[in-house]
Amino acid sequence: MTAPADGSLRRFSLAIDAMGGDRAPDCVLDGLELAAERHPQAQFLLLGDETRLREALARRPRAAKICVVRHAPDTISGDMKPTQALRQGRKSSMRLAIDAVACGEAAGVVSAGNTGALMALAKIVIKTMPEISRPALAAIAPSMRGDVVMLDLGANVQCDARNLVEFAIMGDAFARAVLGLPSPTIGLLNVGSEELKGDDRVREAADVLRDSHAGLNFHGFVEGHDISAGTVDVVVTDGFTGNVALKTGEGVYKLMRDLLKQVFTSTIPARMGYLLARPALERLREWMDPRRYNGAILLGLNGVVVKSHGGTDATGFAHAVDVAMDMVTHGFTQTIRESLSRLAATPATATPAPASPTIAAQQD
Amino acid sequence: MTAPADGSLRRFSLAIDAMGGDRAPDCVLDGLELAAERHPQAQFLLLGDETRLREALARRPRAAKICVVRHAPDTISGDMKPTQALRQGRKSSMRLAIDAVACGEAAGVVSAGNTGALMALAKIVIKTMPEISRPALAAIAPSMRGDVVMLDLGANVQCDARNLVEFAIMGDAFARAVLGLPSPTIGLLNVGSEELKGDDRVREAADVLRDSHAGLNFHGFVEGHDISAGTVDVVVTDGFTGNVALKTGEGVYKLMRDLLKQVFTSTIPARMGYLLARPALERLREWMDPRRYNGAILLGLNGVVVKSHGGTDATGFAHAVDVAMDMVTHGFTQTIRESLSRLAATPATATPAPASPTIAAQQD
Repeated sequence: MTAPADGSLRRFSLAIDAMGGDRAPDCVLDGLELAAERHPQAQFLLLGDETRLREALARRPRAAKICVVRHAPDTISGDMKPTQALRQGRKSSMRLAIDAVACGEAAGVVSAGNTGALMALAKIVIKTMPEISRPALAAIAPSMRGDVVMLDLGANVQCDARNLVEFAIMGDAFARAVLGLPSPTIGLLNVGSEELKGDDRVREAADVLRDSHAGLNFHGFVEGHDISAGTVDVVVTDGFTGNVALKTGEGVYKLMRDLLKQVFTSTIPARMGYLLARPALERLREWMDPRRYNGAILLGLNGVVVKSHGGTDATGFAHAVDVAMDMVTHGFTQTIRESLSRLAATPATATPAPASPTIAAQQD
Repeated sequence: MTAPADGSLRRFSLAIDAMGGDRAPDCVLDGLELAAERHPQAQFLLLGDETRLREALARRPRAAKICVVRHAPDTISGDMKPTQALRQGRKSSMRLAIDAVACGEAAGVVSAGNTGALMALAKIVIKTMPEISRPALAAIAPSMRGDVVMLDLGANVQCDARNLVEFAIMGDAFARAVLGLPSPTIGLLNVGSEELKGDDRVREAADVLRDSHAGLNFHGFVEGHDISAGTVDVVVTDGFTGNVALKTGEGVYKLMRDLLKQVFTSTIPARMGYLLARPALERLREWMDPRRYNGAILLGLNGVVVKSHGGTDATGFAHAVDVAMDMVTHGFTQTIRESLSRLAATPATATPAPASPTIAAQQD
């Protein structure tokens, strides 16, 4: 089992909501069987229907070795409102998994269940780190130059400069832990790359990030096309813009995929061409595979919280477990705390300074 | 020549900034030679270096028939700031083209020159329609179900509910004129499609659009992936989100195109496959061709203003001219005025009502 970075005596690396997702618990258990190969030293606390889970584990020897089952009599359904989940889900697999993180038994939680309920329960039960004003939702996206971290993806539809600065610090710590980058480059999403572009909010945040001692490798402003170009390792934006950008990108990927499918079945030579190019096209498909990017992460809580897509398969669920394990192993929460304390030590952060007249004059 | 919809005695359909863009004036003139085939009844006022333009027209017989040359001694360069263009560009081809619209000589202007300068000069010289508080930048994007109009794409980085409602009205008029749709469906971009999603601004705008007598076919909220799915004909959003979404989509398209290029040259069978599928792939490439979507349109001014991409070729410039001609021919400005007056006749618009408690209760 992995030793927690803060030295406490945690029994479990992760608590797993075994009943969340479209094909739970089988799909979750299949995912853990794959994850067990990559994390043989981990110890997972499995929450759900005890009888079903014991039966399922009996057929999955690798997962059985690293999982401890705890009975949860209830399940939070996909259509339950967050408020309902809070009131009625006290004995649910999701809630008990979150409780295990809150009481320090596990370092993180992975669930493929109801997103709204997971986010709300995690925020209320595990609680936001005292140094962070608002948690953010992050994910990994493919780019021309490797994986890119994006946040916030919708946890905060309205953000101020301070929130954006915190997102940058959390994104930096996440990229170190999960992408293994020693000094990830950070870009702030804007409508242009020049210093005077955008609104006050992004300009103020950029000023703090440029001047701060938070130890961030701040690149400056980036634009929408920089996300898939891989201009920076971490793209920071408010939850409204981030959510729209991520879904727009997914939409264009789907459009291209559907159109290519039509192209390759449109004529007999095109079908033959497809068969010849298939192995090469398969590599592209694997690389862009949404399962490789499964796992949306709620950053800024007193524990690791990863949401797997509800419709994913074992490979996708195992990837979400990988992300959570990377964060736990690399002491993600501790890295954020250190960056925030460095930032707090600088006078610039208390009140983000507006764009200085000198800079404005240079730009005009 | 096209008769203007408002019955005034305009001499020219469009004023053309012949010196704007990377390869002006040749590329502009080649574009007009193509456009002349499709609009033989049009009459264009060509602004630029008289000697060069007369020489260029002598080699382009179709364009020569529909163009009148007027000398402009100066040119606005690509790196000139809008303020500089205002002060120093009074005798430039761009400014004189805009002047021709302002004084009623031409119904619209097309330029491939400096974007910032064009937007600033157009707003100050042609002026915003009295019924509109802020002009918006629109463009056409491809989707699974045909062309989609998107606005605002960056003219206004901060917008309120009233701005979004006006964008919807302008987008509706634009889709009627340019896409030829009798009743375009309008979607408001948001982080979810449920009525309670998003911030106050989008919820207030949705309330007005839902209740108003503006005669709009309002679909409700749409998400990022709905743009390329073609869920609606017109996607309305603020300039910050719209700019990021458009560029993110373009970025993913470029990523896919580059990766496919790599795939098709990676192995010998893949190369052979490409050759077989090539005619079908070419059709896809043509359909997604950025030149087909060339022409960003500044809506809400007392005249038609179309910005062609500076680096486009003759085909792209001709497409920008097509868009401007469609707007002129279909009395675009008049359509907006009619919609706005219908909207003004309803009490709901004066103060957009907040989401009613009834709706909130139903949703919870």
